[in-house]
Amino acid sequence: MMIEEKLNELGFKLPEAPTPLAAYVPALVSGNLVFTAGQVPVSEGKLLYAGKVGKDISPEEGMKAAEVCALNCLSVIKKEIGDLEKIKRVVKVTVFVNSANGFTEQPKVANGASELLVKLFGDKGKHVRSAVGVNELPIDAAVEIEMIVEI
Amino acid sequence: MMIEEKLNELGFKLPEAPTPLAAYVPALVSGNLVFTAGQVPVSEGKLLYAGKVGKDISPEEGMKAAEVCALNCLSVIKKEIGDLEKIKRVVKVTVFVNSANGFTEQPKVANGASELLVKLFGDKGKHVRSAVGVNELPIDAAVEIEMIVEI
Amino acid sequence: MMIEEKLNELGFKLPEAPTPLAAYVPALVSGNLVFTAGQVPVSEGKLLYAGKVGKDISPEEGMKAAEVCALNCLSVIKKEIGDLEKIKRVVKVTVFVNSANGFTEQPKVANGASELLVKLFGDKGKHVRSAVGVNELPIDAAVEIEMIVEI
Repeated sequence: MMIEEKLNELGFKLPEAPTPLAAYVPALVSGNLVFTAGQVPVSEGKLLYAGKVGKDISPEEGMKAAEVCALNCLSVIKKEIGDLEKIKRVVKVTVFVNSANGFTEQPKVANGASELLVKLFGDKGKHVRSAVGVNELPIDAAVEIEMIVEI
Repeated sequence: MMIEEKLNELGFKLPEAPTPLAAYVPALVSGNLVFTAGQVPVSEGKLLYAGKVGKDISPEEGMKAAEVCALNCLSVIKKEIGDLEKIKRVVKVTVFVNSANGFTEQPKVANGASELLVKLFGDKGKHVRSAVGVNELPIDAAVEIEMIVEI
Repeated sequence: MMIEEKLNELGFKLPEAPTPLAAYVPALVSGNLVFTAGQVPVSEGKLLYAGKVGKDISPEEGMKAAEVCALNCLSVIKKEIGDLEKIKRVVKVTVFVNSANGFTEQPKVANGASELLVKLFGDKGKHVRSAVGVNELPIDAAVEIEMIVEI
């Protein structure tokens, strides 16, 4: 099954590729790697998950936020390379979690992205990952994710 | 026009490549990518922008800090590869902003680096970027930036 | 001398490769680069250094934590590629330090990793590095480190 079909079957739809928040490009090919800019959980121009995980929103909502970030990463990758089928491997996912003081479940939040990628891509979706807490993110986003894939 | 000429025309001068703050190298070539270490806004050994953006310094000063970080990235790249003309593409810029609680304009701060790169390199300067807030940075720098370029 | 012999001579032992905290892989080869997931200072399943550097633990303990993270990075790399002798160059080390408010000695903490790598690998161990402070890390780890090496 094609990646986008799987995506739909899982109840998702590939979003419109978000416009960068500022003076940069959303994705770029260098050699056989595609790098994305940091993606926040926006959909159709609206921030879906704001504030600090562990205070303003729950870890479960944080997972949903990470899922939206991952979808946005895939969307900007598709816009750059034309077709998600070209992805040979998801290489690296870096997850910045807007974290309340004392919140240490960044891995759980990041799983919102990681589990979606494995559901979609199977073994090719298994990536290395760093998840860290930060005290603030752009436009008060709950999560920001950047991705590297191999094509 | 050569990159360094453009730099001068824009009123900048490529700084001396800063010495690493510790046991690492400032830039390194792997394949056709050049990776830089994280650069802080120092010039001639002096930290120009200290403290938290949104409290100790303004977003506009933060932009200036990001500009100095980007110049330092270019300087250590030049020292490693000999000539900025060899840069085929600025691939990725990661911007860590020392952020006051409640400060969410990291993209604006990061534009200090991104806009300079596009002015200097044109389309080749268009990069992917992540900008995140952090609660502390080395030597209380206001901004830290790392860069990947393709040669 | 082989890398693992040097490691032993320096009084270290390559740890068991830690199991990822969640749904991802600990290391992965793409082209001639090996990327690791973010590693925290765990040993045999137990977190050795918890809390904020500059409050809960000292900078010197933070250095020890960074050393353990680096050993874990090497361990997951070995598990992926079979032999540390295949490493041609340590390319990049990114160090996230769980930082108390006002703690700005992230470079000192990160040296725990950097100095070990240079002792082990000599010139091949000289890498670029970013060290930043963050307000929270997974499972309250004091340090998290990710690594890229060239094979």
